Amino acid sequence: METKKVTVHIPATIANLVCGFDILGLALEAPYDIVNLILNDSGNITIKHIDAYNLPEAPLQNVAGVALYALMKAYPSTIGFDVTINKQIKPGSGLGSSASSSAGVVVAANKLLNNHFTNTQLVGFAMEGEKLASGVAHADNIAPCIYGGATLIRSSSPLDIIAIDTPPLFVTVVHPQIEVKTSDARQILKKDVSLKSAIQQWGNIAGLITGFFKSDYELIGRSLEDVIIEPIRSILIPGFNEVKTNCKAVGALGGGISGSGPSIFMFSTTKDIALAVEQEMKKIYNTININYYTYVTQVNKQGIQFI
Amino acid sequence: METKKVTVHIPATIANLVCGFDILGLALEAPYDIVNLILNDSGNITIKHIDAYNLPEAPLQNVAGVALYALMKAYPSTIGFDVTINKQIKPGSGLGSSASSSAGVVVAANKLLNNHFTNTQLVGFAMEGEKLASGVAHADNIAPCIYGGATLIRSSSPLDIIAIDTPPLFVTVVHPQIEVKTSDARQILKKDVSLKSAIQQWGNIAGLITGFFKSDYELIGRSLEDVIIEPIRSILIPGFNEVKTNCKAVGALGGGISGSGPSIFMFSTTKDIALAVEQEMKKIYNTININYYTYVTQVNKQGIQFI
Repeated sequence: METKKVTVHIPATIANLVCGFDILGLALEAPYDIVNLILNDSGNITIKHIDAYNLPEAPLQNVAGVALYALMKAYPSTIGFDVTINKQIKPGSGLGSSASSSAGVVVAANKLLNNHFTNTQLVGFAMEGEKLASGVAHADNIAPCIYGGATLIRSSSPLDIIAIDTPPLFVTVVHPQIEVKTSDARQILKKDVSLKSAIQQWGNIAGLITGFFKSDYELIGRSLEDVIIEPIRSILIPGFNEVKTNCKAVGALGGGISGSGPSIFMFSTTKDIALAVEQEMKKIYNTININYYTYVTQVNKQGIQFI
Repeated sequence: METKKVTVHIPATIANLVCGFDILGLALEAPYDIVNLILNDSGNITIKHIDAYNLPEAPLQNVAGVALYALMKAYPSTIGFDVTINKQIKPGSGLGSSASSSAGVVVAANKLLNNHFTNTQLVGFAMEGEKLASGVAHADNIAPCIYGGATLIRSSSPLDIIAIDTPPLFVTVVHPQIEVKTSDARQILKKDVSLKSAIQQWGNIAGLITGFFKSDYELIGRSLEDVIIEPIRSILIPGFNEVKTNCKAVGALGGGISGSGPSIFMFSTTKDIALAVEQEMKKIYNTININYYTYVTQVNKQGIQFI
């Protein structure tokens, strides 16, 4: 077997996009991971992290390894991979770090296998990685990571992924350095919701999708309201309410928790507003004395790219 | 004051459009009402029905009267109206019969008053009529009736109405002659729903809106699923499950309960399919021996028209 290798650039993603809990995700230009894959016929996987996060490199304990094993099982002959991951999307940030590893390696592997698998199959393999990371095989980070832009997961079973058009949007993200485990964030949610709140939520998701298709920024802003998940989960994120209020006061359309947190994102129509939003975020976390990272970026439309 | 009169053609409407309970409505080409209004300075309203339904003609007991009074109160000088209603949208059909009367008269009155009021104000007046009819001042029949096409009520308070693009769609409606009161249909709903069902529902509404904007008929079909309201309300409508199953078997995209019933509607992509759907509906109600009306029509894009 000849040596075949490929390097991919994998976007961070926002899942649970405000009123789109569990169904709507979005890919970002920054931050991103870089992953290199070499195909061999060993039947094994080696993983090497060249980053600062001390993630486990044993394949069955690494989301990339688990996703690749799922792909290898579905491939008709014996293959193996040497994987090098340069992770820049911080684990536990709520920006789809685990989805990036899982989706990145299966998309890279598929390229090396001459596109043997469909995108839907790749999402399925990558979801095995998500299952290891959070206990739930969800696709709302993986889908935008692979497809780019905004993606709707209309249904998880059977999987129904639909690309959603979005107008140009600037995205400011703040990642306060506190830990919010996805499993904890899930556990505090109530099993039942009032029909009244549910109706408000589906009015807002319908408004948000309409705003995206019509490039109606005012409507996008009005629809960025989550009456069900955010009131509960935001309690886990110090400074959340101030971030939302102050960022909207300087012109942000709106925003919310990225994934299950702790990152918070805000949409803006111009780079100037997005930078002003960043200043507000910095002021708040400086005041309450929590370390943070910020990103001022845009929607990534391409998904995973080969470099 | 000179005698001013106007005649309007008012479309039937479908509210609670499957997964869009309380937020999504659609105007139909048929059936429709015809209403004539004469403006005077009497400070009073007279209502005459030239149809077969024995509706009350006392203004405070007629939805058109109540809606007109709301408009008259907001107008700066003393006015009055003589109203003649030829109702073809059967009361209690679930096809927006009361909304037609309420919306029709206020739109007609506004024309006679040289468009003194905005459309949003007219919706507010007409909602007073809906309150009389069903106890709830909802806008999801009134909005599509006035605006035409599909309309989203993102929020009722404050009122936020948004037009939704739809691709060409044929609509087959069957109105089985049984009584389902809107107030009863509301009462049997559960106050709480599971978060899991709510997520399915907002995945479907997002899919339906996306399908409308992308003219993706397959996606529209897959998204026409209501896991919350329909399982409860359909129990009140004999033949409901058979109608859905058999109509989809002959090619309908999908459909559901119109408003709070008892009418059932199905979407189709061609007139031939819409007619085949009608045959299936007829077969079912002939078999279970319930009288019915059917309509094969299309989406009304104009709303209320002056004739």
